[in-house]
Amino acid sequence: MQHEVSVCKIFSFDAAHQLIGHKGKCANVHGHTYRLEVVLKGRPVTEEGRSDEGFVADFGDIKALVKARIVDKLDHAFMAKGDEPVLETLQASGSKVAVLSFRTTAENLAGYIAYTLRQSGLPVYSVKLWETPTAWAEVLAADIPEHGPAYCMNGGCDL
Amino acid sequence: MQHEVSVCKIFSFDAAHQLIGHKGKCANVHGHTYRLEVVLKGRPVTEEGRSDEGFVADFGDIKALVKARIVDKLDHAFMAKGDEPVLETLQASGSKVAVLSFRTTAENLAGYIAYTLRQSGLPVYSVKLWETPTAWAEVLAADIPEHGPAYCMNGGCDL
Amino acid sequence: MQHEVSVCKIFSFDAAHQLIGHKGKCANVHGHTYRLEVVLKGRPVTEEGRSDEGFVADFGDIKALVKARIVDKLDHAFMAKGDEPVLETLQASGSKVAVLSFRTTAENLAGYIAYTLRQSGLPVYSVKLWETPTAWAEVLAADIPEHGPAYCMNGGCDL
Repeated sequence: MQHEVSVCKIFSFDAAHQLIGHKGKCANVHGHTYRLEVVLKGRPVTEEGRSDEGFVADFGDIKALVKARIVDKLDHAFMAKGDEPVLETLQASGSKVAVLSFRTTAENLAGYIAYTLRQSGLPVYSVKLWETPTAWAEVLAADIPEHGPAYCMNGGCDL
Repeated sequence: MQHEVSVCKIFSFDAAHQLIGHKGKCANVHGHTYRLEVVLKGRPVTEEGRSDEGFVADFGDIKALVKARIVDKLDHAFMAKGDEPVLETLQASGSKVAVLSFRTTAENLAGYIAYTLRQSGLPVYSVKLWETPTAWAEVLAADIPEHGPAYCMNGGCDL
Repeated sequence: MQHEVSVCKIFSFDAAHQLIGHKGKCANVHGHTYRLEVVLKGRPVTEEGRSDEGFVADFGDIKALVKARIVDKLDHAFMAKGDEPVLETLQASGSKVAVLSFRTTAENLAGYIAYTLRQSGLPVYSVKLWETPTAWAEVLAADIPEHGPAYCMNGGCDL
């Protein structure tokens, strides 16, 4: 759309997970240094003299919101669907856990993050989540229905 | 489209080539460390308990197919159109050659890879090929006709 | 569109700027190592025997034009809107200055670069400007009106 610009702010978090039932090595408890790219799209502010003149959104504001809603919750946590055998022991021993209720694939996590940020009022255009330096999943916010990502249809969605 | 997610798996291969008739330095035999990004798009599997629940496609499966059809063929090879003076000597001396029948620009290679993977049954959305760390070409699978990329119209297309 | 391919050439330049009126640390004179990604889109040349057969555009030609019109102007310069208190002293002491007339946010700079290159005859599809390794702004050339980016509406646009 005329005058629209995309802006992206990139984050990183380290988390563990386990894909129960996976035929390959992801069936083990393992972890990744996730790289999270949050893209917003809109018209830059044109009113002169404002702090945010020329910005779609102030990178500092995006940073604060994504940190509070996503990074602080997932960083150095075990991201759980809820059916992992280690879950109880982790919780009992005080190791950080984020119970998400869905299978923690890169696809589902990207959908979860985009939906959560949109619910927080951020004009999210897309979210790209790198699971490793050679693999990512990306979701457009417009492809997520108002009631949440596809995995919510299986029930147990804690959004 | 609702619920669709993109996933990307990234590969690397080292290959030589030569652009006969180029006005600049690409007229010489030279080579690159190519970086290949294969993007698929689709709805993640939602049936619980399956190995691929929450995946658009298992990264392990993508990896196996791209390795077999592309990387194994091009890695440490001389990628030839067929009119290169060194071709005969390379073949006679047992140096690996991939005769592709088209001029081996990044644009044509990206089209070749996307078309080949689509013919192999992969739901390819796009292919981005980095020729150097500062230059890439990208093709959307939807922009490649069913009978093959544009260079096939010049005949000699061995797809 | 059928047979279209995107190509991207990436540049880097180091520049200083200052956002007068910003509520945060960007109100100070500071600088960045900008990374500039220029994307063109079109059909590769199919006529055999030409220097540019198989190219959307020769990376060498893109490089020469972007260097002449953008990088040589902004590299190691203070990018100014024109209202910065240090401007006069910089100019008097012979320190390189690029007076741009707009607030030098990543969003506005991306719009400026895309518009300038399009005016120079390059078939620009998009421009992505990295301000830091974790933040970028991107503009599609099609979203910039013929008379220039949004900031030109505030007057003082020297394009």
